[in-house]
Amino acid sequence: MPKPGPGEALIRALYLSIDPYLRGRMAAPGGSSKSVEPGSIVVGGVAGQVIESNDPRLAQGDYVEGQLGWQEYAVASAKTLRKIDPKLAPLTTALYVLGVPGLAAYFGLLDICRPQPGETVLVSGAAGAVGSLVGQIAKIKRCRVIGIAGTDEKVEYLTSIGFESAFNYKTVPDYEGKLRGLAPNGIDVYFDNVGGPITDAAIARLNQRARVAVCGQISQYASEEPSMGPRWLGQLILKQARVEGFLVRQFSDRFEEAYRQLGNWLRDGKIRYRESVVDGIENAPKAIVGMLEGHNIGKQLVKVA
Amino acid sequence: MPKPGPGEALIRALYLSIDPYLRGRMAAPGGSSKSVEPGSIVVGGVAGQVIESNDPRLAQGDYVEGQLGWQEYAVASAKTLRKIDPKLAPLTTALYVLGVPGLAAYFGLLDICRPQPGETVLVSGAAGAVGSLVGQIAKIKRCRVIGIAGTDEKVEYLTSIGFESAFNYKTVPDYEGKLRGLAPNGIDVYFDNVGGPITDAAIARLNQRARVAVCGQISQYASEEPSMGPRWLGQLILKQARVEGFLVRQFSDRFEEAYRQLGNWLRDGKIRYRESVVDGIENAPKAIVGMLEGHNIGKQLVKVA
Repeated sequence: MPKPGPGEALIRALYLSIDPYLRGRMAAPGGSSKSVEPGSIVVGGVAGQVIESNDPRLAQGDYVEGQLGWQEYAVASAKTLRKIDPKLAPLTTALYVLGVPGLAAYFGLLDICRPQPGETVLVSGAAGAVGSLVGQIAKIKRCRVIGIAGTDEKVEYLTSIGFESAFNYKTVPDYEGKLRGLAPNGIDVYFDNVGGPITDAAIARLNQRARVAVCGQISQYASEEPSMGPRWLGQLILKQARVEGFLVRQFSDRFEEAYRQLGNWLRDGKIRYRESVVDGIENAPKAIVGMLEGHNIGKQLVKVA
Repeated sequence: MPKPGPGEALIRALYLSIDPYLRGRMAAPGGSSKSVEPGSIVVGGVAGQVIESNDPRLAQGDYVEGQLGWQEYAVASAKTLRKIDPKLAPLTTALYVLGVPGLAAYFGLLDICRPQPGETVLVSGAAGAVGSLVGQIAKIKRCRVIGIAGTDEKVEYLTSIGFESAFNYKTVPDYEGKLRGLAPNGIDVYFDNVGGPITDAAIARLNQRARVAVCGQISQYASEEPSMGPRWLGQLILKQARVEGFLVRQFSDRFEEAYRQLGNWLRDGKIRYRESVVDGIENAPKAIVGMLEGHNIGKQLVKVA
């Protein structure tokens, strides 16, 4: 058992967050300075409880969230941990609606895309943790929302949480034709979690002055070499459209605003969520593979203790 | 000879503007509602002189600029014509520094990319009408400027007008390696006139929070089907970077500001320009083919009369 030093706390992990970006960290060694090398601790968000604290900000028994990686116990500097009040919302939401996926949906949709009432918003990976929140926030902002997902069950889930329409890309041969049917007046905002041919079709259906937020490219993470696709920059000119990649950390000075707003929406029932929980840290590898294959709806978690 | 109606003027063309976007208008019939069909007048900017006017805004002998197409005489509504004072700057600048290319460089660089002093700005198609202005405006804004062009003569021209460095992509096998050498600290702003593999390399070398203005894609205009390239949206995420297409018309309420500022820079010698003039409207087709093949430096014009 590690011992916390001054300003540090010892945390017992209760839940691990399983997120698509982890796949990018598991690239071939040497691929990125931030990659997870064989033998090292897999990175990732954790919700847990304080066992011992050497910092006045945290007391034994407090619940916290932080980037502690895949381990049952971890020592961390108290200032890198976010204290969670599980009376306000279940602890797991600290890894979901009131965590990084919530921040990604909030800032990616509202700040990068600036959706206006009546606009059409398309979301890929729509039944995932981020996508399902993006669609619901777009509804709160009085947009029409279309979701793309990979199973009929996910499509049903999306319409059940308020998406106007959704389709299963695995059973639709012509994405662009499908989008033309679902959004005959085009797409104003595209929130991309997926990339690849789905994104090509979305770009082809963008409206004038459309905005695209690039949050994830899960269809591309497994390839060592970039895959090839049609060049579409010429379409951005004709449509005067914008495509922007983002990371939640660029909004770090506004996290409190987002947590407060997301918390209100959650409390008011304007945001609903679904979790998929796997038991035991030994099943974390299975959980990440399953998520990359699209088995889960909403957030994938691993219950550690 | 056509007769001007009420509110109209008859214009004698003096110069035709030859611009890359014309190629896009010459797509296969049915390809675009705005394409030039065989037998119709080729679209394009013209600088000319008023022969007869039925509008108080214009008098016989006035110089004007407007979208009159490839014809020696044209009737147009006076309100669609911009009156030019050739005492302030040569008439041809109404199709260049003080015309659409100037507006594209001004708004595309300053508004889309917002370059900051000390940043590195990369320009493709750098020796063309727009690119050569972009580089000079970036220098005025105290940026480091790198140009990409297609002949050694153009590279020499670019360094002569103040670009820190430039290279001939036809003699460089590895664009990305070349950019790494010229800009070891990466690229903050990329102004793209060209597209294709040059743009792939530029994207690979973008810095955090980089901005890309997509003004043209001249390498792609001749293909009926979109060509294929590596997918790079994942890089936009890691770099939190933005790619934006634009058309000058989106800034139409600020043209006066741009003309005034560009006129000042021109008068103060901060912007230099070079024209390539072909004689005779019958040589306009040759001029556009030559421009698409990269024969000209600066602005390609056709002298009609």
